[in-house]
Amino acid sequence: MDQATAIAHPNVELIRYWGNADEALHIPSNSSISMNLAGLETSVTVSWSFKNSRDMVTVDGEEPPVSLYRRIVTHLDHIRRLVGKSLRAKVVARSNFPPAMGVNMNASLFAALTLAAVRAAGLELSERELTSLARLGEGAACRSIPSGFVIWHRGDSHETSFAESIAGPEHWPLVDLITVVSLVKHNGTQANGHMLAATSDLQAGRIISAPGRLAECKEAILDRDFRRFAEVVEMDTTMMHAVMMTSRPQVFYWAPITLSIIDRVRAWRDAGLNVCFSIEAGPNVHCICEARDADQIEAQLSSMGGVLEVRKATPGGPARLI
Amino acid sequence: MDQATAIAHPNVELIRYWGNADEALHIPSNSSISMNLAGLETSVTVSWSFKNSRDMVTVDGEEPPVSLYRRIVTHLDHIRRLVGKSLRAKVVARSNFPPAMGVNMNASLFAALTLAAVRAAGLELSERELTSLARLGEGAACRSIPSGFVIWHRGDSHETSFAESIAGPEHWPLVDLITVVSLVKHNGTQANGHMLAATSDLQAGRIISAPGRLAECKEAILDRDFRRFAEVVEMDTTMMHAVMMTSRPQVFYWAPITLSIIDRVRAWRDAGLNVCFSIEAGPNVHCICEARDADQIEAQLSSMGGVLEVRKATPGGPARLI
Repeated sequence: MDQATAIAHPNVELIRYWGNADEALHIPSNSSISMNLAGLETSVTVSWSFKNSRDMVTVDGEEPPVSLYRRIVTHLDHIRRLVGKSLRAKVVARSNFPPAMGVNMNASLFAALTLAAVRAAGLELSERELTSLARLGEGAACRSIPSGFVIWHRGDSHETSFAESIAGPEHWPLVDLITVVSLVKHNGTQANGHMLAATSDLQAGRIISAPGRLAECKEAILDRDFRRFAEVVEMDTTMMHAVMMTSRPQVFYWAPITLSIIDRVRAWRDAGLNVCFSIEAGPNVHCICEARDADQIEAQLSSMGGVLEVRKATPGGPARLI
Repeated sequence: MDQATAIAHPNVELIRYWGNADEALHIPSNSSISMNLAGLETSVTVSWSFKNSRDMVTVDGEEPPVSLYRRIVTHLDHIRRLVGKSLRAKVVARSNFPPAMGVNMNASLFAALTLAAVRAAGLELSERELTSLARLGEGAACRSIPSGFVIWHRGDSHETSFAESIAGPEHWPLVDLITVVSLVKHNGTQANGHMLAATSDLQAGRIISAPGRLAECKEAILDRDFRRFAEVVEMDTTMMHAVMMTSRPQVFYWAPITLSIIDRVRAWRDAGLNVCFSIEAGPNVHCICEARDADQIEAQLSSMGGVLEVRKATPGGPARLI
């Protein structure tokens, strides 16, 4: 029995992925940038064997929902095809953070799954090949394989749509204060959302303007220019929510308190603190700040009525075998 | 001394005006539809005379801010040019509703001002000519001149950018429950906002898709099809706010409670009530409903924490001389 365990961090999007150019291959409508989140991680152990009649999967000790099980099996099929053998897998996944906290757990799960399954199968793939492979399972998973600050190049084929690091985690000591206001999964799932993106009359404008924001964000990261970084991150995240709110049907992910946090973050920045917001497909808010301001902002966020928890993360390394 | 008094209702936008193709002439980026609001009105008395050395203006018994005074004088200049005499005017304007309640008072003010000033000067203009003239003072004022449900045709010149009624106030007994959550004027003014519109990468998509929504809304009004009406009104108002939120700088007009009201309105409609939201450049929400559901919805809105007042309006008639 060939077994391997890998750990990956989820990532927070700074320039967002929303909508696919190719739904089946998860080739996105635009390139994106993210930061891996140290402090949060998913570990996945994969054991290949001829014994089992079907793939066995547990996520946090339980059988996953059918939809996730099927996605994992389909992903294992890709790897079986590479190996050329009809092995069955036992997959044990565990995360140290809850689902629906505003962090895409599928990103770290499919990143760790890809790395563990490939290694356990004895395959040798480059990091770039691993990112493309992880992308097939969950688009955002490709960004959880390289280290630190990562760009996912849209590309126009399986091979050219891949992720790579633009700076390691030590490059910029940012802190992501994940401000949790709800742990309830929103009706609109990510998968539905990506397909909904094209139904918004505003999606084309978002996509056309995304390369400009991507270049701006990359430069701001490389220059550690927080003000520039904050402006482009907030604009980009708002653009994604603008598209969501104008899709058919309209999807409003923000809760009232989401807007309160947006207001506070903007006011804090006006007052000189280096903090900005980024919001996934849900009401929780990533308040990304420079380390020097993190304690003060964390205290303020924690004291807001309606905030359930503030979870701290810092720039994280690559997916790795253990 | 030649004097006249006119009364006009403000209007609520159903398909929104946001951004100009010609800033000076107030030729908008897209055609719009509105409903006049009976219950709210502005009366304007204009007296032309050779005696005064300057135009005298009071609004609700007080001298208006300089910016508004200048706009009124500029508007009077247009009429002086038509008359061919350098008369000075005394203008007394009064409204029965507060500014910043989520209703554009300049619409009713410039509509009534135009009608009173023209009549007092002895000019004979058609309704269409009056709407184009009012538009020069305040874009949205052109829609407060015709009766009931009104379309403002974008046009491409002063003469072709005008408003006309598509149905009288008796056509559809709607009720606008203006849900006031703030009476503080937002930093971003309407005028700034229209100029900001072009700075959003999403404005082009809004404009390109506006004619489809306009046609849909017009048909829904003519058919009294509330469900169709609700969907297109909410989509259009969200589009405008999406553009505002992604302009440079980003402008967030919604307050947390605005989102609470949006959520409630959508839930009420899912539960069978005929109600939808429309939101101006501010946090207050127009909850537009069919008369049969108005009392129930008004009671629910009034009981929400944070709601200061619910002001009721119904489809209103044209601007008129008294």
